[in-house]
Amino acid sequence: MRDRKRLVEEFDADLQAELCNELEKVDGGGKFSSDPWKHPIGGGGLTRVLQNGSVFEKGGISTSAVRSSLSERLARRFDTPQQEVFAAGISLVLHPWSPMVPTVHANFRYIELEHGDWWFGGGGDLTPYYLFEEDARHFHTVWKRVCDKHDPTYYPQFKELCDEYFYLNHRREARGIGGIFYDHLRGDFDKLFEFVRDCGKAILSAYVPLVERRKDEPWGEREKRWQWMRRGRYVEFNLLYDRGTLFGLETDGRVESILMALPPLVRWEYNPAEAPGPREAAFLEVLRNPRDWT
Amino acid sequence: MRDRKRLVEEFDADLQAELCNELEKVDGGGKFSSDPWKHPIGGGGLTRVLQNGSVFEKGGISTSAVRSSLSERLARRFDTPQQEVFAAGISLVLHPWSPMVPTVHANFRYIELEHGDWWFGGGGDLTPYYLFEEDARHFHTVWKRVCDKHDPTYYPQFKELCDEYFYLNHRREARGIGGIFYDHLRGDFDKLFEFVRDCGKAILSAYVPLVERRKDEPWGEREKRWQWMRRGRYVEFNLLYDRGTLFGLETDGRVESILMALPPLVRWEYNPAEAPGPREAAFLEVLRNPRDWT
Repeated sequence: MRDRKRLVEEFDADLQAELCNELEKVDGGGKFSSDPWKHPIGGGGLTRVLQNGSVFEKGGISTSAVRSSLSERLARRFDTPQQEVFAAGISLVLHPWSPMVPTVHANFRYIELEHGDWWFGGGGDLTPYYLFEEDARHFHTVWKRVCDKHDPTYYPQFKELCDEYFYLNHRREARGIGGIFYDHLRGDFDKLFEFVRDCGKAILSAYVPLVERRKDEPWGEREKRWQWMRRGRYVEFNLLYDRGTLFGLETDGRVESILMALPPLVRWEYNPAEAPGPREAAFLEVLRNPRDWT
Repeated sequence: MRDRKRLVEEFDADLQAELCNELEKVDGGGKFSSDPWKHPIGGGGLTRVLQNGSVFEKGGISTSAVRSSLSERLARRFDTPQQEVFAAGISLVLHPWSPMVPTVHANFRYIELEHGDWWFGGGGDLTPYYLFEEDARHFHTVWKRVCDKHDPTYYPQFKELCDEYFYLNHRREARGIGGIFYDHLRGDFDKLFEFVRDCGKAILSAYVPLVERRKDEPWGEREKRWQWMRRGRYVEFNLLYDRGTLFGLETDGRVESILMALPPLVRWEYNPAEAPGPREAAFLEVLRNPRDWT
């Protein structure tokens, strides 16, 4: 049997290198730093971050492959018996300067438990600050095409899981306009790995056209304030709900790599106007009532 | 028997009015808004916030008295049987513009369970951005004096509980330089209530002298950046660890009142220099090794 762990690690490393190269071209100014790190228990990762670029205010692409042991508390929380766990993954978050360009997040992970069980999890989702319907359709259509190639039941399932997962219950709204999210994908390793590889390749084609289309749209103080405030919701989601973040912090993961996903500048006003105008109101409407975009 | 709930509610309301009055004088410009609100299940509160003042960038003083039922999940989390719970409290957070003036937080709460058990919880703690030893000594000395008047065992106990509670485990550092924190204070209601009243009166004498001393200290871009970054830790604490915040959000509390405590503008850089200079380094040292200030 080939080493599944090694296959996944190689895929993560190759994808990271390719994404960093291509996104540096898209940014046209910023460069990704490279911080390799070791986990106190075993394994480590490579965190690559671009800050203060031309298009991106902050973007990070991190890979990690860590062997750790699930605490009793976490085992209960993740509803799995207490044991050693191997987790390898790549995750990407891009926060653009312009409020017209959406934030994007993608993550692909492979988990293998001590006693042999393994699965894939992952997905990609979009967090815009303003709604451009053609952008939402484009983003979802790319993911649907990737899913349909492998299994026609994937997209409808994973789209719904995404809407469920990226939901701020206390705000009664979604983090963004979704995408796909899957977890506990078990079965034929080769077939599933092929699907994951196709997802990895799809990130740029789902996102880069939106950057090109929107990066020169005009915006002012009002749109920037709205972006800062919406970024507060992003922080609320990541620190209150995101299982990856909570898992990482509780298992002594590298804090700077886990929290690289947080936006660079964020605003919390008390009780601001729900939406300062009709464009913001239309956007909120979609966060409250997720749509079918394909 | 007098109605303990009503006594506490009156105390909260009087203290809120007095604190708002006095703090408006200290600010010398800003005014507290007044938002009364109802809880969907029963009770409600009054949230008062001052934004964009002369001294304070954002400050909030909120009272609430809510009857709600503990979900099974929360009952497990707070290690108490599932039942109806009455919770009345006042909480205060002040975020000054100047990085030389510390952020202060205080909270006093009274909990009464359906089956008759009741207790007080509360305290006050300081989150500076720069260390002024005489300020730390003053703040702690005021709380020690209040505690000693009632019970000489209080201060050492509550100082330690405060250091334990306001701790960011993932950062391996305290949120600030502490103060006092107590919980599950049961016994003679009249005596305990007298202690709580004295604590309420002590907030201003613990904090206002620090504002007066530091508000005209010079600061620049570098100190502001440091403050924004440290405010990120404040957000991390409140959303990852603070029991009051998590309890409020999970029991359908009023989101804007719960999150009024979050700082107005916050920065997350990736992997910033741990401390940009010796003053910041000296401050971090204290966050990692809490001192005895009295």
